[in-house]
Amino acid sequence: MRIIMAGFGTVGQGFAEVLHKKTDRLNRFNESVKIVAAFDSKSFVADENGLDPLELVERKKSTGSVGSEKLKSGIDVLDSVDYDVLVEVSPTNIKDGGAGLKHVEHALKNGKDVVTVNKGPLALKFSELNKLAEKKNALLRFEGSVGGAMPIINLCSENLKGERVKSIRGIFNGTCNFILSRMDKGLPFEQALKEAQQLGYAESDPSYDIDGIDTACKVVILANSIFRRNVTFSDVSITGITSVSAEAIALAAEHDMVIRLIGEVSDTVLEVSPRLIPLGHPLSVSGTLNIAQIRTDLAGPITVSGKGAGRIETASAILSDLIAIMDRRR
Amino acid sequence: MRIIMAGFGTVGQGFAEVLHKKTDRLNRFNESVKIVAAFDSKSFVADENGLDPLELVERKKSTGSVGSEKLKSGIDVLDSVDYDVLVEVSPTNIKDGGAGLKHVEHALKNGKDVVTVNKGPLALKFSELNKLAEKKNALLRFEGSVGGAMPIINLCSENLKGERVKSIRGIFNGTCNFILSRMDKGLPFEQALKEAQQLGYAESDPSYDIDGIDTACKVVILANSIFRRNVTFSDVSITGITSVSAEAIALAAEHDMVIRLIGEVSDTVLEVSPRLIPLGHPLSVSGTLNIAQIRTDLAGPITVSGKGAGRIETASAILSDLIAIMDRRR
Repeated sequence: MRIIMAGFGTVGQGFAEVLHKKTDRLNRFNESVKIVAAFDSKSFVADENGLDPLELVERKKSTGSVGSEKLKSGIDVLDSVDYDVLVEVSPTNIKDGGAGLKHVEHALKNGKDVVTVNKGPLALKFSELNKLAEKKNALLRFEGSVGGAMPIINLCSENLKGERVKSIRGIFNGTCNFILSRMDKGLPFEQALKEAQQLGYAESDPSYDIDGIDTACKVVILANSIFRRNVTFSDVSITGITSVSAEAIALAAEHDMVIRLIGEVSDTVLEVSPRLIPLGHPLSVSGTLNIAQIRTDLAGPITVSGKGAGRIETASAILSDLIAIMDRRR
Repeated sequence: MRIIMAGFGTVGQGFAEVLHKKTDRLNRFNESVKIVAAFDSKSFVADENGLDPLELVERKKSTGSVGSEKLKSGIDVLDSVDYDVLVEVSPTNIKDGGAGLKHVEHALKNGKDVVTVNKGPLALKFSELNKLAEKKNALLRFEGSVGGAMPIINLCSENLKGERVKSIRGIFNGTCNFILSRMDKGLPFEQALKEAQQLGYAESDPSYDIDGIDTACKVVILANSIFRRNVTFSDVSITGITSVSAEAIALAAEHDMVIRLIGEVSDTVLEVSPRLIPLGHPLSVSGTLNIAQIRTDLAGPITVSGKGAGRIETASAILSDLIAIMDRRR
């Protein structure tokens, strides 16, 4: 299986490390898995015999570029290198999908399988991409785009295939949950945010997280993939956590409740908002975990939780999608 | 897909109801699913054109027997009716596997696929059955045998295929957890047990649950299927909950802990015992839920919970296994 990696930031580097670490395990499937090309926003490198994943990581870390050649465009690389699967892990662009959307579209158009954790293309053009994949008999998988290492998309669409999923409610952004958990301990919002930034949980521009945009992307992906709705980012009713005051949190605590940023999706609901959650309720978790409550017609409520971010954790979801593709293509 | 049902107790009836309810959904897979024979310990009924699931439930409820014909042996039915999949839901026998083991063995020997929630055959002869299935190119699936509707076996062996699962610790018996949860509220063991019996959570002979036997069966199934160990019921170190005193629970509470019956399995551990769990820990849940913490090398800890018993919930796990078989056989 020949892979092209589009994007080589935190998650891309994590995936390269995982691929190196799991060589033996993957060889059990009687097929060699190799990276035949990798590119970031400025550079690329290609070798049909396979690139050493750790060398890629090393070069990116020391030079800031994954490749030694100057990149004309990602599409150029996709057109000039023979490959089977595109692993698209370039940065999310929620305005127009950015380069990631172009890469995913181009690969699917050429009948290539795609694994991505890039929420931009999925939150903006899910339906189009899915139809394109079906038409071209290509596989499009994106487990890591929601909840990182927390299993949810493949769980619902494969393990729970006989169920009607009635609703999913969950915490899909570890940064917001960390901030709200710290506010439970009496910290004001600004201080909790600063702490999250110091610990590397929040970006220097935190709006993508705290305004609920990241959670909204995930809600859209769940709506389209599990509920087979045809919605896009602009359809979500979004309230972030910047309006959650210390007073509101103290008042909630008096009633044995906490405030959590909840994403909810069903056949009719598509919402991100801070909600009151009773202490002891599965969704009252603290810290950076992601968690989801899946309500189904037969199995009743199923709850899953796991690490929602982290380079190795997200890479593990990419790996599971890749193995599923190998299984399917055999 | 032609199904023979072996056993028609609570779960069997639940499965028949689910099959009726999900006809439309299953037809989406472009294959009709029909029950061509069903038998219980005394009777059988067969029709190559398919039996009405609800009529079977009706007859079982009104006469105590699923069929109108006297059963000679289940093997006779398996030999005389053409079928594709055996759904084995007869009662668990942990001494020698009972009739269930014979049915499963016989079906696999003839290259038939098997879905079962019967813990006896799996806890006693997992390795033999698995080898037999491989040799005969038959599928053996058993999601519902551990945790009922809580996804765990297929989750680990399919969704987390790239991971090395390092350990699984969990609550796999809702009856014990209900009793311990009631003891948290100050009830003595005997009274909590009586309450569980009145609510239908515990059998009139509760030893299978409270002595940890049921949990041990599940631990064995996880060890063999996920950790690829070759162990059997007698290899498990088992302590039940009958020795958990009200004093121990009160003492735990003083230190913000609860006592829960935990099953643990790893490459080296195979144990069922009451353990102290800090309040707020994921495994400190109350009530009849099942829950499992899965530790992996890449994804970190993943927690799942769901209804561990119940006729429709367990039937839903059987349905998901059946759909997976349909997918594979297409």
